[in-house]
Amino acid sequence: MIRVLLFASMLILGSRALNFQLDELTKYIDSHQEEYVETLREWVAVESDSSDVLKRAELDRMMDMTAEKMRKMGGKVEMVDIGLQELPSGKTIPLPKVVTAQFGSDPGKHTVCIYGHVDVQPAKKEDGWATEPYNLTDINGNLYGRGASDNKAPVLAWIHTVEAYQALDIDLPVNVKFIIEGMEETGSNGLDAMIVSRNDTFFSDVDYIIISDCGWLSRRPALTYGTRGNCYFFAEVEGPKQDLHSGVYGGTVIEPMTDLIGILDTLISPSGEILVPGIREAVAPLSDEEWKMYQDIEFDMENYKNKIGVSRLMYSNKVELLAHRWRYPTVSIHGIEGAFSAPGSKTVIPAKVIAKFSIRQVPDMDPAVVEKQVTDHLKAAFAKRKSPNKLKVTMIIGAKPWLADTGHPLYKAGREAVKEVFKVEPDMIREGGTIPIARTFQDVTKKSIIMLPIGGFDDGLHSQNEKMSR
Amino acid sequence: MIRVLLFASMLILGSRALNFQLDELTKYIDSHQEEYVETLREWVAVESDSSDVLKRAELDRMMDMTAEKMRKMGGKVEMVDIGLQELPSGKTIPLPKVVTAQFGSDPGKHTVCIYGHVDVQPAKKEDGWATEPYNLTDINGNLYGRGASDNKAPVLAWIHTVEAYQALDIDLPVNVKFIIEGMEETGSNGLDAMIVSRNDTFFSDVDYIIISDCGWLSRRPALTYGTRGNCYFFAEVEGPKQDLHSGVYGGTVIEPMTDLIGILDTLISPSGEILVPGIREAVAPLSDEEWKMYQDIEFDMENYKNKIGVSRLMYSNKVELLAHRWRYPTVSIHGIEGAFSAPGSKTVIPAKVIAKFSIRQVPDMDPAVVEKQVTDHLKAAFAKRKSPNKLKVTMIIGAKPWLADTGHPLYKAGREAVKEVFKVEPDMIREGGTIPIARTFQDVTKKSIIMLPIGGFDDGLHSQNEKMSR
Repeated sequence: MIRVLLFASMLILGSRALNFQLDELTKYIDSHQEEYVETLREWVAVESDSSDVLKRAELDRMMDMTAEKMRKMGGKVEMVDIGLQELPSGKTIPLPKVVTAQFGSDPGKHTVCIYGHVDVQPAKKEDGWATEPYNLTDINGNLYGRGASDNKAPVLAWIHTVEAYQALDIDLPVNVKFIIEGMEETGSNGLDAMIVSRNDTFFSDVDYIIISDCGWLSRRPALTYGTRGNCYFFAEVEGPKQDLHSGVYGGTVIEPMTDLIGILDTLISPSGEILVPGIREAVAPLSDEEWKMYQDIEFDMENYKNKIGVSRLMYSNKVELLAHRWRYPTVSIHGIEGAFSAPGSKTVIPAKVIAKFSIRQVPDMDPAVVEKQVTDHLKAAFAKRKSPNKLKVTMIIGAKPWLADTGHPLYKAGREAVKEVFKVEPDMIREGGTIPIARTFQDVTKKSIIMLPIGGFDDGLHSQNEKMSR
Repeated sequence: MIRVLLFASMLILGSRALNFQLDELTKYIDSHQEEYVETLREWVAVESDSSDVLKRAELDRMMDMTAEKMRKMGGKVEMVDIGLQELPSGKTIPLPKVVTAQFGSDPGKHTVCIYGHVDVQPAKKEDGWATEPYNLTDINGNLYGRGASDNKAPVLAWIHTVEAYQALDIDLPVNVKFIIEGMEETGSNGLDAMIVSRNDTFFSDVDYIIISDCGWLSRRPALTYGTRGNCYFFAEVEGPKQDLHSGVYGGTVIEPMTDLIGILDTLISPSGEILVPGIREAVAPLSDEEWKMYQDIEFDMENYKNKIGVSRLMYSNKVELLAHRWRYPTVSIHGIEGAFSAPGSKTVIPAKVIAKFSIRQVPDMDPAVVEKQVTDHLKAAFAKRKSPNKLKVTMIIGAKPWLADTGHPLYKAGREAVKEVFKVEPDMIREGGTIPIARTFQDVTKKSIIMLPIGGFDDGLHSQNEKMSR
């Protein structure tokens, strides 16, 4: 965490020229380590689980604490009302406010905007945690706690960096803005609209946006320059007007489940090849340069395989594997709604079944085109079956991939900072997952974006025993 | 219901020769109609739902009422303790007692044993009932109420038949035994063991067993001479050691769900043909005689299609359709455990998924052989995929079909009774579903069994608005 603070400082400093100031900052940060851990402990203790509406008061308190911390530092802080959240019951409750803050407004300086979130995924000791998830616990220099890595410590790192400058009375070389939300873990509900509405105000003078909500690939520091997008589909097959007893009716009706299984089986081959026509053709070819870059990335295939717990990965070659993780599309079938899914047995012919599957998006795929390709393909496969049942295909999410220009000065500065602080060249990596807010920032604000992972590859985000190394 | 009583009487009388007695019985039964409806109302009012342990006291009360009714009639009644039921929590509770009763023990007479049950499926007004499900309601001569048709009125019909003989002081032409259980709707838990243990005592002098727990096919009375069996399978594919995020890991692992969909798709063709080698070959060929019999059965295809609510059935020809309902096997895929099954979207790669499917059994299939055929077939299909995941196939239910000899005197007597009471020749039908207790009775006691449906085809068993016509 200490290095992360230096890293953040270095990035704000933006240059190796100010070695004197960096030395001062290093000393200051080193001597305040325990305070930083203490603040993280206080933040982790707040059960700011955004998926559980019963914890909404805790989440609101977390937003207040975030605002209060920056207010005390003299920031120009606002708590932005972003409207209501509709619950499945139809009831509505207020969304947690978004905290914005500003330190400095010198028109002669660049302005960076730091995005982060302080809500967390659910966590219970019974899920398999070795420690109490909301009680930050130091074991051999690893700080275990829900939200430690995702995303409370990274947010605090940036705030503490500004604080260190203030304490040492060093003029911030850039104006710093913050945008901290409380709904990231459940889809950043309300944030898109807020970004659009503040585009001409809060974002108007922002030059760069920094996102620190991702992780390294290995023990080696990394900069992230791309994420995959996601097209999420519902394929619904409807037959009888109600569920039927499979003994009484089996053999006389064409079952929706059989039809659904049949068309799902046309999406992807056993070896992972997408079978929907047109999709593979749309993918930007892997350049020699990329191949070379992937080849140089530090990535332990054996470790990755063991972590997942499989005996064999989809590809045995590092470049192939990384490419299929980051820059090739893939199909995942998540499950089926409406069929029998409980333990035990039930002799039912489900009347209406809805498959959920998604295709990860990469350049140069276009979600609108993918929607048509998938729908046409499934309809053709379904038509071949000559079934009397009805098929409905809906794309419910169509999130585009995000890809940054790694030659941008922002990435150069990031690289310099990593080299200065960690004494190694960073890996240039992508995320297989989707961080839709990156794409929104890019599309709406047209600003340059950099993703600075400040979490180890083994931090266990979203999983049990999440941690942040000291 | 009145006709049902006559029907039951007629079957006990076993001959058209005793027309004088039948007239007397007819008069008696007609004049006691309201009393019979009243008793059914009292029985329906008991929420003897065997699937809900919170209703166990009601179920126990129902068993007591059943025993008490027959005790008052002078029957030799026993309430048989059949042991404990293990709940999913691991807790155990006593199973509802099985009521046995005996009227007459003349060694010079045949002895019939009547099987029935007085437990019911769950029912709530909110499920879509037009009336209160546990308040028997007469609408145009139809008596609506949970359990009215399945199986309280049929049980009462037999009891009231014995009572009518007693009231008229007519000597019962046979000894009558009853075995009435309270767990039929949840799998007849404990009954098999009880039958085995009483085989040399209670069942030793039984000549015929009569089961009245099924329905007619149309408005025409029917006798049931067969049921399909059922082989219920779990096919489990296990991959990663825990669920993975499909964005982060998609494209690098071979997903269990894709493998499972792939092998499920090899079970059955779009037109309903079972693709597991050996299964179709094992099925007894349809004889000309059967074909002729099916041809003569009263069955309204259009009505059946509309009731199910599909635009087209699996077969458009009556004989084909009935044959595939009763005497051909079929595969139904019920659902998948372990995958995402809730409404909404989740970007998960499920680590372990378990498909539930079943194959209905008919002569001359053998569940032990089917188990091997299915397991071998799925393993071969899985092996072709060259997946690193693990497949486990388990058959959790292997219930044999049941088929009676329709030439047996019991069926002749049944036919006579129907002709006498309803003035038509009964349809000889089968059940597509499984009544495992029929097979147990046959295998353990070696007695002849007849199934006498005493419910209309539109009685709505297990569904909303169950009814029994007066």
